[in-house]
Amino acid sequence: MFLSKLDSLNDALKLIDDNQKLTSIEEIPINQAHKRVLAEDIIAYHNSPPFDKSAMDGFALKGENTFGASQSMPKTLKIIDSIGAGDFSNKSVNDGEAIIIATGAPIPDGADAVLMKEFTTTDGDELTLYSQVTPGENVSPMAEDIEKGNTILLKNTFIRYQELGLIASAGYDTVKVYKKPKVKLIITGNELIEPTKDEIDKAKIINSNQFTIKAMVEDSGATVEIGHAGDTFDEVKNAILEASRDFDVIMTTGGTAISKGDVVLDVVDDLGDILFHGVSIRPGKPIGAGIVNDKIIFNFSGQPVAAMSQFDIFARRYLFKMQGRNFDFNIVKREALLKIPSQLGRTDFIRAFSDEKYARHILNRGSGIIRSMVDANSYIIIDENDEGYQKGDIINVVFFNSLLW
Amino acid sequence: MFLSKLDSLNDALKLIDDNQKLTSIEEIPINQAHKRVLAEDIIAYHNSPPFDKSAMDGFALKGENTFGASQSMPKTLKIIDSIGAGDFSNKSVNDGEAIIIATGAPIPDGADAVLMKEFTTTDGDELTLYSQVTPGENVSPMAEDIEKGNTILLKNTFIRYQELGLIASAGYDTVKVYKKPKVKLIITGNELIEPTKDEIDKAKIINSNQFTIKAMVEDSGATVEIGHAGDTFDEVKNAILEASRDFDVIMTTGGTAISKGDVVLDVVDDLGDILFHGVSIRPGKPIGAGIVNDKIIFNFSGQPVAAMSQFDIFARRYLFKMQGRNFDFNIVKREALLKIPSQLGRTDFIRAFSDEKYARHILNRGSGIIRSMVDANSYIIIDENDEGYQKGDIINVVFFNSLLW
Repeated sequence: MFLSKLDSLNDALKLIDDNQKLTSIEEIPINQAHKRVLAEDIIAYHNSPPFDKSAMDGFALKGENTFGASQSMPKTLKIIDSIGAGDFSNKSVNDGEAIIIATGAPIPDGADAVLMKEFTTTDGDELTLYSQVTPGENVSPMAEDIEKGNTILLKNTFIRYQELGLIASAGYDTVKVYKKPKVKLIITGNELIEPTKDEIDKAKIINSNQFTIKAMVEDSGATVEIGHAGDTFDEVKNAILEASRDFDVIMTTGGTAISKGDVVLDVVDDLGDILFHGVSIRPGKPIGAGIVNDKIIFNFSGQPVAAMSQFDIFARRYLFKMQGRNFDFNIVKREALLKIPSQLGRTDFIRAFSDEKYARHILNRGSGIIRSMVDANSYIIIDENDEGYQKGDIINVVFFNSLLW
Repeated sequence: MFLSKLDSLNDALKLIDDNQKLTSIEEIPINQAHKRVLAEDIIAYHNSPPFDKSAMDGFALKGENTFGASQSMPKTLKIIDSIGAGDFSNKSVNDGEAIIIATGAPIPDGADAVLMKEFTTTDGDELTLYSQVTPGENVSPMAEDIEKGNTILLKNTFIRYQELGLIASAGYDTVKVYKKPKVKLIITGNELIEPTKDEIDKAKIINSNQFTIKAMVEDSGATVEIGHAGDTFDEVKNAILEASRDFDVIMTTGGTAISKGDVVLDVVDDLGDILFHGVSIRPGKPIGAGIVNDKIIFNFSGQPVAAMSQFDIFARRYLFKMQGRNFDFNIVKREALLKIPSQLGRTDFIRAFSDEKYARHILNRGSGIIRSMVDANSYIIIDENDEGYQKGDIINVVFFNSLLW
């Protein structure tokens, strides 16, 4: 029996959300900030570019001095200076004059355009032009990317590589981000052994959850430490109690099935509060969640596929939100290639292989069959108010890739 | 001027592919194999499950002994033993008998089904059943997930969390994978300075490429070390030569623009061979690639957005393939929300914001405007044979997310 009535998915998610916490904030060097979440608004310390900048190697000049120049009607100007990248010129460009300029160098006073080198020839300080440019051409205007004093990124923005570039250009060498949640994953089950090529003792099973759940935690922006506990009440109690002191989130696998001795959930009940035990989903019904020592604990099934789905549905959301990042399933519409029944009142997460147009569910998909997750790239979600779908129906699909950090 | 004629995108990609290398292979512990690429076929050492396994806590029995049992017509059996997880029973279940069994435990001889605990009551060794089960019910048959001796994953498979679980279950505690490519990123440009909140000296510009390109390399499964070189021939030569000894791939930023002094490409020409310099793409035309000391070198533009696009088009592909992973743009079709012109003979990678239905290009998108990458989540790709598209046209889109490792 479950220790509470079977919750609907929405009720269970609400209980999780009601106990949502944020991690604290840390300031880290910008070169470590990739894939972290901003915990401050970014207000630009500088314009970018900080000056009108040449976008080409060539000659800074007045655009109107080039008007009419062509291969057959070249014009000439006088070269009065040269500016390399990182340098600038104190001279001003007047009518009839030009300054040699490198890509990235500041446009000198008086000039308003850059003519590319390949449209010119030089002879000493005489420049001959075979093409014209309009004022502004090949010039990147000051502040075209970032304006000093402006808020350019908001708190809670996920930092991709491009945000990293923008933050650096705005003058930040450190940045405030949400700390990575520290997760303790406790594996229970006396039958579990480490992977081995050798003959396996009768009744023993290789523990694969430690690898999959660890990887999933890391795919949610968090760090993870793995522990093991035997199936007795005291062993599980000690492991959970210790974890609740040093970690932000506790996860267990095993011992959540209906009608089990239910050591894991009994321990949660003993040490703290059970939020729910048993949710009307498939796969993954035997899932528990609770609060121990003010920390959330997720009790996943020992069945590998059930545990993965439970993680995707409940734990990812919590870990994302803990770091200031929103989490919603990115649901897309696909056409069903096969029919499938479902039960009213239960939400199904059916492993499927989907492409840009179709979704086809994996046929052999017991909650212990890891192969069914390997063959899949998505879930078909059947709402609790639906009794399944027919071939050709437009259905809801979530790609695994869209769940990743 | 470019040091070679302007290559078409396809010609340039072919030159890269012709020089594609694989990294060597290493054997690593399975708990480090997440997001690596298999360099061996995985052949199962074990069946999984290794025995007919109980999927529930309850009673192992002969299904036919339960036929007809219900709340109003209960049946009774005799309990002859108990099996916990990790244990097994030497006893055989005969007609009229049952054995207490935990989830994950082996089904004892003679039994063919498990009746869940909640449909029973017990009094000493007398078991009363209020429900029936069919033979096979609540039993996970031996080898339903993995069959011993079968090839369950092929070489070159990308290891997601679910593959990790399958590999572990098959008995592997270590796995052969392609080594991560070691990339040296050399930043050139005398005008570049580190991010700072302080006033910036005239003509200096904050170097953001080191952060974005480093993050992109890491998003391609590789490791990266950053170096800096001044804009002189000798400084760049020394940096590239040294990198070519210790790294698998060399990347530079800066000094690739048309008509530049072109130190970087001159160095490549001096030390090795230029594959191409200048490709008919936008943004990103000033891109070079070459071979130095038998290592590939990518010469990216100093313009931030051009460098990112060049990385996406040329370097990701190389880094993915180096690790045995295929790389093709995952092109999806979307409806254009705005019209945009393009030039015949040039392939455009237009930053865009796309959703499930539409693509809208970013309006302000000079090759130095990082904001245009921040506002985007995708490229619209316009083939060299197209002159652009009209509002409402169905166009080719690649999501940034689909490019990630």
